Amino acid sequence: MTTAEETAGEAQPWGEVTPDAARRLLVAAVEAFAERGYHATTTRDIAGRAGMSPAALYIHYKTKEELLHRISRIGHEKALEILRVAARREGSATERLADAVSSFVRWHAGGRTTARVVQYELDSLGPDARAEILALRRRVDAEVRGIVEDGVASGEFDVADVQGTTLAVLSLCIDVARWFNVDGPRTPEEVGELYAGLVLRMVGAGR
Amino acid sequence: MTTAEETAGEAQPWGEVTPDAARRLLVAAVEAFAERGYHATTTRDIAGRAGMSPAALYIHYKTKEELLHRISRIGHEKALEILRVAARREGSATERLADAVSSFVRWHAGGRTTARVVQYELDSLGPDARAEILALRRRVDAEVRGIVEDGVASGEFDVADVQGTTLAVLSLCIDVARWFNVDGPRTPEEVGELYAGLVLRMVGAGR
Repeated sequence: MTTAEETAGEAQPWGEVTPDAARRLLVAAVEAFAERGYHATTTRDIAGRAGMSPAALYIHYKTKEELLHRISRIGHEKALEILRVAARREGSATERLADAVSSFVRWHAGGRTTARVVQYELDSLGPDARAEILALRRRVDAEVRGIVEDGVASGEFDVADVQGTTLAVLSLCIDVARWFNVDGPRTPEEVGELYAGLVLRMVGAGR
Repeated sequence: MTTAEETAGEAQPWGEVTPDAARRLLVAAVEAFAERGYHATTTRDIAGRAGMSPAALYIHYKTKEELLHRISRIGHEKALEILRVAARREGSATERLADAVSSFVRWHAGGRTTARVVQYELDSLGPDARAEILALRRRVDAEVRGIVEDGVASGEFDVADVQGTTLAVLSLCIDVARWFNVDGPRTPEEVGELYAGLVLRMVGAGR
């Protein structure tokens, strides 16, 4: 069960959402979707969690799907930004891949409630919204694949299946949102460091 | 969206469930939970999918939670069995870890609808059912950790953090249920083989 307190303690990518009421409704929707699932949540539930009336919600979002779409778009744009920064910084492919993985893991651990909603409710989006999000996911994939390709070209990495290995690296990072426990023995930073090391082994760095 | 046809094509661990009506209800529950989420599904929905009346469902399962508990227990027992077979076969730690990963991946790809329900609805179980399933999960973890420890002891593997690496290996395999697409370019067997190779690198086999 996701409590408001738990969600409030997470890294929130909602700073850009204005006005304040629209932002509060998005946070309330994330909590409700994570706790009960998209299909079991009504716009009335979301408005209630945000301390607002259903009519007030309707000023900002016409449908429940619009809320999920907005959450999913912001979540994916933030993921893409994190990977773009890591991919385009100065440094070797080894350094950039380690940076990409540790940043991506920290984000999935810190923002696990949002990440779960974004990942598990993808099938709840309508066709147009889903197509837009899938295009963002291909760009996320391309950023990581680009670093792996750079490492292969420079001789730093030894990878037989670049596409499959990229998929595995992203999958490993994304699944942190499923199992990460804020009361567990590891901090997001520690998991990020562990995973960066494991991923460098996966791509054969330093072999 | 999960269709009956899609679920029907998956590897089903329900052979042991008798009588036939009880098995049909479990399969219907898996489909409904996967499609709409546990909280948005009623026992009436499940009975309807199985072509039965709510009263007929009640003969076999007293509550919706009992269905989820049964699905989760069977799913976890099957996962444990797959890993036990791999862990206890003849062979080096390298061979046994490769076998464990490829079998576990094939099972998560082939039985992805069940695996998603089992993994994502864990928080929907009541305290007693949840405690039972968490105990099974610790046994699943211990099987993989045992192989990694054997490989470290024999000098086959080079692993600084056995617990963290075990967690990552299991996470990588489990997340196959999220992304695997039956219409995608890879078969479950191909993903299993790719992942076995990546995991052997993660544990430093052959370095």
